[in-house]
Amino acid sequence: MSIVVISGSPRKDGVSGQIGHWISDTFYTDHINLSATNIPLFDGAEQTKLHPEVTEFLAKLKKGTGYIIISPEYHGGMSGALKNALDFTNASFFEEKHVLLLSVAGGGKGGINALNNMRTVFRALYAEVIAKQKVIDGNSFSHPETKRELSILINQFLEKIHTPNRWKFGGAMGL
Amino acid sequence: MSIVVISGSPRKDGVSGQIGHWISDTFYTDHINLSATNIPLFDGAEQTKLHPEVTEFLAKLKKGTGYIIISPEYHGGMSGALKNALDFTNASFFEEKHVLLLSVAGGGKGGINALNNMRTVFRALYAEVIAKQKVIDGNSFSHPETKRELSILINQFLEKIHTPNRWKFGGAMGL
Repeated sequence: MSIVVISGSPRKDGVSGQIGHWISDTFYTDHINLSATNIPLFDGAEQTKLHPEVTEFLAKLKKGTGYIIISPEYHGGMSGALKNALDFTNASFFEEKHVLLLSVAGGGKGGINALNNMRTVFRALYAEVIAKQKVIDGNSFSHPETKRELSILINQFLEKIHTPNRWKFGGAMGL
Repeated sequence: MSIVVISGSPRKDGVSGQIGHWISDTFYTDHINLSATNIPLFDGAEQTKLHPEVTEFLAKLKKGTGYIIISPEYHGGMSGALKNALDFTNASFFEEKHVLLLSVAGGGKGGINALNNMRTVFRALYAEVIAKQKVIDGNSFSHPETKRELSILINQFLEKIHTPNRWKFGGAMGL
């Protein structure tokens, strides 16, 4: 099992990236921090698809058997940077793989529209997006309680992936 | 009144751009074709916000009193290129202004998720997005019937903008 975290904030000091680092350190996952990449804008051209930043991103992504996706909410959606990176992918990356969605929104407002946007997009990529999701207030991530809640959610997600029969049959094995 | 069309396909030969050109030629609107721009990825940095491609985009956008937005549907959402461009904007560009949404989807499938994504994002930017919208099959745009239907929709949109009292009071003036 190889979990890949994608933090979708393009800001160098973004909270999404900080959360990605923390998850990566705590749960020994890979971490693709989009703010540390220079992925070009997808334009459909073969030359762009072969850009070294694109091929490196896709190679890291391909190794994942499960994904934790974190995005800030910008204007009621995921960041353009995250959607742009996903525009280089297709269902072959995500089909039958499990995804946990997290959103970062400031001051206790919002986040749900970014989550809904991500859910629709990952559904279109045939990912199995788990029902549970979480909005993290950017100002509260340093609080131990936030990290504790997030740990519980991530452990639940990892347990689902570790226990495919439980996942597929909703705990009703043998019934 | 100054209508600005934004075609959100990053592909040089994208149908969204062709539709944008046709609307611009037929209805004498401005046209921002994102495939002809080199807007960088939004990263929150002041230097990026002052990139000439960004300031030019925002200056053209600011002139609009109404907007027609066209996006291909990529993986159940608007293009990353369009969302990225919108990440440079804020409500000061769109508040109290009217928006018509169009989506391009191939082979008669899809389009609605891109439209819903755009509707949520423009709502967050406080635009007045009109209820009517349209998915255009990329293969059918050359058909006269498609252009006729699109013309009717655009004329309805322009009439709404021209008749603000009718727009605001739903035609019930004097009642």
